Formats: sequence, C-alpha cells, structure tokens
Amino acid sequence: MNLEKILIVSGTHGNEINPIWAVEKFKKLKKLNNKDRNTEKLKYILGNPEAVEKGLRYLDCDLNRSFNQKKTNFNKDFYELKRAEYLLERYGIDKSESCQIIIDLHTTTASMGTSVVMYGRREKDFCLAAILQHKFGLPIYLHEKDKDQTGFFVEAWPCGLVIEIGSVAQNHYDSKIVENFITILEFFDNLNHELESSRIKLPQEINVFVHQYSIDYPRDVNSNINALIHPQRIGKDWSELKNGDPLFLDMNDKTLCYEGMENMFPVFIGEAAYREKNIAMSFTKKENIQCSNQWLDNFLTF
Amino acid sequence: MNLEKILIVSGTHGNEINPIWAVEKFKKLKKLNNKDRNTEKLKYILGNPEAVEKGLRYLDCDLNRSFNQKKTNFNKDFYELKRAEYLLERYGIDKSESCQIIIDLHTTTASMGTSVVMYGRREKDFCLAAILQHKFGLPIYLHEKDKDQTGFFVEAWPCGLVIEIGSVAQNHYDSKIVENFITILEFFDNLNHELESSRIKLPQEINVFVHQYSIDYPRDVNSNINALIHPQRIGKDWSELKNGDPLFLDMNDKTLCYEGMENMFPVFIGEAAYREKNIAMSFTKKENIQCSNQWLDNFLTF
Repeated sequence: MNLEKILIVSGTHGNEINPIWAVEKFKKLKKLNNKDRNTEKLKYILGNPEAVEKGLRYLDCDLNRSFNQKKTNFNKDFYELKRAEYLLERYGIDKSESCQIIIDLHTTTASMGTSVVMYGRREKDFCLAAILQHKFGLPIYLHEKDKDQTGFFVEAWPCGLVIEIGSVAQNHYDSKIVENFITILEFFDNLNHELESSRIKLPQEINVFVHQYSIDYPRDVNSNINALIHPQRIGKDWSELKNGDPLFLDMNDKTLCYEGMENMFPVFIGEAAYREKNIAMSFTKKENIQCSNQWLDNFLTF
Repeated sequence: MNLEKILIVSGTHGNEINPIWAVEKFKKLKKLNNKDRNTEKLKYILGNPEAVEKGLRYLDCDLNRSFNQKKTNFNKDFYELKRAEYLLERYGIDKSESCQIIIDLHTTTASMGTSVVMYGRREKDFCLAAILQHKFGLPIYLHEKDKDQTGFFVEAWPCGLVIEIGSVAQNHYDSKIVENFITILEFFDNLNHELESSRIKLPQEINVFVHQYSIDYPRDVNSNINALIHPQRIGKDWSELKNGDPLFLDMNDKTLCYEGMENMFPVFIGEAAYREKNIAMSFTKKENIQCSNQWLDNFLTF
C-alpha cells in the first residue's frame, strides 16, 4: 500500500492562526531532525492567504463553503471562489500537483477538544477517521444532510477530513493548541510508513456524532439575539442534552430549556464564527458504525 | 455625598461583545424589577458603534488610544478620533450631559479574571479602585509611564477605571462573563446609595500591580514572530515570574526563559489584540499603596 500525497491545509480561515504556526513549526522540526528526506508525503498550502494577511475569517465569502461548482459560476468576482477554483486546478485529481487526501486544519472557539469532522458517508473518510479514533480516541462529527451548509473544502477531493481543535480565540496563539496540531501532523507524516508496515488496525466499530440540525439563538421581533447559551451548557460540547435541560438564558434572566423527546449531543456550542450563519449550536445523535476489513484494503485505491 | 452621573461605556472595542450584552441585560432587569425610578445615576453609551456594527476592534485606529488632543489634531479624518471628540464634547466636564466618572468595560483573551485597570496615580481613581478591591478582591493593574500607550478613554475624565474581564474570545458570547459584568454594574448602580449611607469603608492598604514595561514576541530577521508564549506561562496572569522561568517556546522547540534579577508579575499574557502593538505581555511589580481617610471625603468633589 502506498499513499502518493496528502495536502495539509492551514489558514482556510484567516483568523485561525494556530494551525498555520503548527505547520511552520512542524516543517522546521523535521528539517532540524533531518527527517525530511524519505518520508515526505505531505504537501502544505495556506488555504486563504489574503485572509491570513488581514487576520479575517474571509474577504468575500467563507472559503470553506466555496468548493461547489454552482457557487463558483454564480459569483465570479469573489476572491474565495476564485481561490477554490485555483486550488482545485492545482491540487485536484489528475492536476499538476495532484493530492489524494486533504487534511484541513481548523480551530474553534467552542470547547470541542481535538476532534475530527467528516462530510457525508464516504468509505475512505470513515477509514481514516476510524484510524484516528482508534489511535487517539478522538470524537468524530459527521456532518450530513445540511442543505444550508455545502461546498466544504475536503468534499472536493476523494478523501478528506477536517481536524478541529478548541477552544481557542480567533487570532490568538496558544502553544498548547499548537502542540495538539503537531501530534496530528506527525501522525499523517508517518501514515504511509504505518500503512506499509501493516501496523494499522481498524477497531471493530467507531462512535460517530451524526449531525441532525442546527439551532439559532432565540431572537426578538427585530431579529436581534435576545438569549445567550446558558452557563450550564457552555463548554459542554459532546455531552448529552435531555428534555428540560437548560439551553439559553435570556435578557430577563429566564432559562430556556431544551424541549425535545430525543436526546441530543450538541457541538460547536457558541462558536463565534457561526453567529453570522444563525447557528448557536448543532445537534447530533450518537451512532455506532461497524468498521469493515475492506476499508483498509480499499483505502489506497484512488 | 452625592454623585451626579457615572458614564458606563461598552463597545469601546467593537469585537468585545459581552459588556454590550451585559449593559442591555442590566437595563432590562432593572426595568423588570421596577428599580429604575430613583436610583438612576448611570448613563450608558456605546463607545464605538461603527466598529460594533462590523464586529471589529476599530475602523481607523484604536478608540481607546484616541483621547489625546494632539492625535485628534493630527488625523482629523479618522473615525475614532472624531468619535473621541464627540464623546468629550457631549459627556465631558461642563458639557451638556456631563459625567464625572467613566467606567469603560472591556474583555481580554488573556486569563485576567475580573480586574481593574487604572491609568496614572489619580487620587479619585485610587479611591474607587480601593473600594472595588475591598469589596470583590479584584486585582488592580496600574498602567503608567508607558510612552507608547497613551490617550486612554478614562484618562480624559477626572475619574475613571477600566473593568477588564477574561479570558473570552473576541466576538464570542459567554454568559458567565456577562454575569460578572452585571455584578459590576450593580455595584456602580448602588454606589451613590452606599456612599450616602456611609456604608463604604476603605481598607488600610491596597495591592497594585504597577506597569514596568511590555515585551514583544521573539522575532526573526524578517520581524516575523518565531516563538509563542510558553505553555507553562499561558493563563498565568498575575503570577510571579522569576529568573529562569519559561517564557516562550520557539519553532525549534527551544524554551526561552526569563532572564532578569527582578521578579515580575506578567499581565495581558498573549492578548490577541496586542500582537499588532508588538506586546506579548506586560510586566508589573507589586506595590502596596496606603489608603488615606481623605480619599473618601475628597471623592465627590469634582
């Protein structure tokens, strides 16, 4: 088994600066330790260099919602849509610097810890996510069936995951977060070697948090937010939410509770960048996915 | 003793959204509890409404460095300089809506907890800071002798403090931070009543963290940052730093230590907004200040 190239992307959102730092540090450390001779299967790219320069999430529109041909045709002048086209033209399958796998590194202001985000139920993504969960115990958020959120970066390649680490403020360096990213980068740098030596085993099953729907903040008649995430729910990403549990606290100090018969596991609770998308948090349900022995065999047939 | 008006300012930095929320909630709660009839000594203003609208710290320059007549004369077109002039013209001493005290509410991405920031050694500021430390045990950061940082909002009034609460990300709502601000607002709302009933006593002395100098991140020959705050120093605002203690961690994983004979107490460690000001943290030294019985007597003689 042999992987050709993995594209490591940092700075897809220009104000998420710790992954950018982690990649630079990782490259330096490899050079310092003379480890960059034979194992080099990683390519690195800055997703949105103009936004990084300005310390903004994006200039015209969210790059990580721009990998969707329809959108590109619609708004040709948007910087991020042109950037998405460029990245596909350069790193897409059968292109000049073709990569098979995209690993897109992100941070969140929510207390997600180190986590994996995957989009839809592609076997290769499941395989890679299963390897990561087995090795590091990472939670997996499976984003699917969300018409309002499409065109994610990694969806445009045959295999790809987001690594999402938080909580950390935008434009705020945190060396602990950096070290967590470096652990992930070391894993991908060794992946080929591990695959070749057949040291990688899949677990029998993985636990996946499957996206159900997102909820907005409560709003007044003028559409202004009038309640915040309840103090008892802040920082409780991945924790079960039951009927009657506090969810929001409004301006009159009234607690608004979750009213639903199905227990949920909220993620991205209070993520700062999602307010403009009218998302206070996303509800997921837990699902066990059986791993197949075929996954590993098929993994490298791109 | 009688206070005329205290001006409560939120949104001096447009991406510090929790104080804005806290003020709105506080006003609503007062109305709800019918408490806004006789005690109303507070006025409220949004420091930088245009920046709040855009979710940015500022548009042209930092409003909280713009209350300096020289600067105003120099760059007449900057929005924040015009805004500072407007605020002084409206709320300054002897103006139409004159206020005696300014309380400017801020958040920080650093782990400062709830803290008081004062500028220079004005007796009235000391008196108010002493009351706050005595009542809530808040640490006080005394900013002085810093030629690079001038023109702070509260300096332009005869008495004024900054209330600085963190850590919280920019543009990120946190209801726990909001509740901390509401406690502070309640205090100022009751201040006049407390002063009248002579219930306020000063402590014998207060502990103040006095600004010495700020240090930048280590940088390479191209002036790019090449080391981050050391993991052992992150979140350790107000804690003693001794010769040999880890301070930064560079790209080669080398720890850079503090080399200085004088022990320091760093604050604003890694504050996201200060990177553009070339500040990684500010060093302070602890000082005990004796409180005077005169302070309270003089407090209301504006």
